Amino acid sequence: MSHPLRLGIAGLGTVGVGVVKIVRQQAALLTARTGREVTISAISARSRTKDRGVNLSQYGWEDDPVVLAQRDDVDVYVELMGGEDGPAKASIEAALAAGKDVVTANKALLARHGQALAEQAEATGRVIRYEAAVAGGIPIIKSLAEGLAANEISRVMGVMNGTCNYILTRMEATGQGYNALFEEAAKLGYLEADPNLDVGGIDAGHKLAILSSLAFGTRIDFDGVELEGIQRISLEDIRQAADMGYRIKLLGVAQLTGRGLEQRMSPCLVPADSPLGQLEGGTNMVVVEGDSVGQIVLRGAGAGEGPTASAVMGDVCDIARGVRYPVFGQPANTLKQAQRGTSTLPAPYYLRMGLTDKPGALAKIASILGEAGVSINRMRQYGHVDDYAPVLIVTHKTTRADIDAALNIIAKTDVVVEAPVALRIESV
Amino acid sequence: MSHPLRLGIAGLGTVGVGVVKIVRQQAALLTARTGREVTISAISARSRTKDRGVNLSQYGWEDDPVVLAQRDDVDVYVELMGGEDGPAKASIEAALAAGKDVVTANKALLARHGQALAEQAEATGRVIRYEAAVAGGIPIIKSLAEGLAANEISRVMGVMNGTCNYILTRMEATGQGYNALFEEAAKLGYLEADPNLDVGGIDAGHKLAILSSLAFGTRIDFDGVELEGIQRISLEDIRQAADMGYRIKLLGVAQLTGRGLEQRMSPCLVPADSPLGQLEGGTNMVVVEGDSVGQIVLRGAGAGEGPTASAVMGDVCDIARGVRYPVFGQPANTLKQAQRGTSTLPAPYYLRMGLTDKPGALAKIASILGEAGVSINRMRQYGHVDDYAPVLIVTHKTTRADIDAALNIIAKTDVVVEAPVALRIESV
Repeated sequence: MSHPLRLGIAGLGTVGVGVVKIVRQQAALLTARTGREVTISAISARSRTKDRGVNLSQYGWEDDPVVLAQRDDVDVYVELMGGEDGPAKASIEAALAAGKDVVTANKALLARHGQALAEQAEATGRVIRYEAAVAGGIPIIKSLAEGLAANEISRVMGVMNGTCNYILTRMEATGQGYNALFEEAAKLGYLEADPNLDVGGIDAGHKLAILSSLAFGTRIDFDGVELEGIQRISLEDIRQAADMGYRIKLLGVAQLTGRGLEQRMSPCLVPADSPLGQLEGGTNMVVVEGDSVGQIVLRGAGAGEGPTASAVMGDVCDIARGVRYPVFGQPANTLKQAQRGTSTLPAPYYLRMGLTDKPGALAKIASILGEAGVSINRMRQYGHVDDYAPVLIVTHKTTRADIDAALNIIAKTDVVVEAPVALRIESV
Repeated sequence: MSHPLRLGIAGLGTVGVGVVKIVRQQAALLTARTGREVTISAISARSRTKDRGVNLSQYGWEDDPVVLAQRDDVDVYVELMGGEDGPAKASIEAALAAGKDVVTANKALLARHGQALAEQAEATGRVIRYEAAVAGGIPIIKSLAEGLAANEISRVMGVMNGTCNYILTRMEATGQGYNALFEEAAKLGYLEADPNLDVGGIDAGHKLAILSSLAFGTRIDFDGVELEGIQRISLEDIRQAADMGYRIKLLGVAQLTGRGLEQRMSPCLVPADSPLGQLEGGTNMVVVEGDSVGQIVLRGAGAGEGPTASAVMGDVCDIARGVRYPVFGQPANTLKQAQRGTSTLPAPYYLRMGLTDKPGALAKIASILGEAGVSINRMRQYGHVDDYAPVLIVTHKTTRADIDAALNIIAKTDVVVEAPVALRIESV
């Protein structure tokens, strides 16, 4: 049997504690499957004394994760602190420089600095593994980078923020509005310290940027992700969508077309009877479409101690077995800089706006849409509620650019009470 | 760049042709992702001259796959002939003996001889990879053996025979009976040469036996799979199931409990709103439950040229990248011989029988069930159709052994017209 694989773990939040538990409780299984012992040499976290329900006394301790990352008795540096800069970045760079392999769950860091870190890792023959960074326990990184490696991927889609899906499915189930469910999610501890990371789509956008790179062999381009949160989704939108056979999901879509790389993370209408449409609560789902494999759907818990720790330890097992390949599936210096092709693929859109009580208001909307080249498929106007009348429109296929052009003009008129809501109807 | 990885491909059916196409059409992508060229040195198939829509003139040819497997210019022997013995087995043994790695889609061979082949491979440091053997393009072998390696798996379930799922979902959709849909499937070319491999559950049973070994670290025990086909499923069963909120699927379930390894491949009732219950047509689905990860669901095409070739080539890419680990995830000589624990886990059952037109017939059935310890939850009797009256019973949780004991007694009475049908109601 080979010598033990020795971990240094930075960060003892939910996931870190989960990893320690697996190493302790599944030691025999890990050894059977990897052919070597997996041990923890030392740990770094904010507090050494906090009771986390797991005995840490047998492990070394470092206050500074950078020091931990460089310890001689660490083979794999496991970064579970989070944060797109600061100690997470500094310690991973230190680990790579010291010849350690790295396992991380840090999607923000990879979305921002993945290219530079991959280049550093590959220059010194190290690996960075990050299954836990996307969709929790679902083995989507491995599936894309390895299992589907012989496919030219045409599209990757995913519901990858459990908190948003929880809020949206609870709105539908309870008839409560966004604000009430946001409060509920906050009380349950489902929200990040900065809730905008969740409800603004940023966290899910980080994940999409990582999947794009793996799928298309392109450099990570998080700034190229068109981001839109769920904050403006109303109960009315959810009801109208249901009425038409759809459900609203915060959906990430990445597609590489002749016009460039389109990356979108936004609330969309998806068919209620599709796998994505059926997704409830905090569950995540990723859909991959490849030229040979067709459509593959993966579903599972997207967060939580067990699922995320399972993903971290799957990466650790690979390293223990000697599985090594470039960070984004092909050498970082061969990844292409994709032209941004956001908003070029047409789709039908769902529009909601509130018309003021003025004669000709509806005609004005219809006329502006028509002039922008947006063709109306269905329209419903309701009676006035307080000072305005809700209008719901489903367009024929059009581009986001045309929609936005029309909505910008509409927002400046005096016939709508607030900026219109526009949701893409995605064919999945 | 490393030297090319040279394949020898035996078998040019649907999958073999798909593999040749990927090697030819995705050469650049394969090289980018694996860091080396993937080439075909030579091919073996029944006919050298048959037009398969792909130009083979540039490749070497061997009439005998055993000779192909030993060629000096072959690094990886790709066995796509099928058959649980004969040339497939002989050629894989020859390939391993000659120091070649092996990729195969042959579930029957692995289910029967997987242990011996794994021992041979590991004795000489070779790998055998077989993603394509189970559930077509779905990366389930990789997910179980690698991604979820840190989990103690509690249950693996799957709908893994597209033909059976096609017949069952078409019965429901069209209202046609089993025989008519069997003929339809035959005409569409969905059935194996021996259709019992499909509709008898054998093919899916082979796949389940392979998944069990990977999931639980046990030696493959295909003979321990309790097999039951879909031949006796009637439209009435499908309608009754739907009425209760269920759908009937040919479902494989493998569970390791204190009582041993339970492996079942049989038609079951699953909740209509569960991912398994929602599965349509030829699509496959595998559900894995692990102690850390919770429930993971994978879904995709279970057969066909592209999906199966994608799986074969995923394995080839791994070998090209130097990914190597034991055939069933841990050394073959450490796999445990599991005690068979089939039929020990209780569940509710759905029973259908036809009562003869005799006084006291129903009382007799109820009494026999009661004496066998089978408690009735719901029962429906219909008016007499011709000479018999259909009776449908849903039991409380009971074991298959108790059900079988009762049904054996019932079958010997003069109150039923044919052997009763018993379907497990599986909680998924």
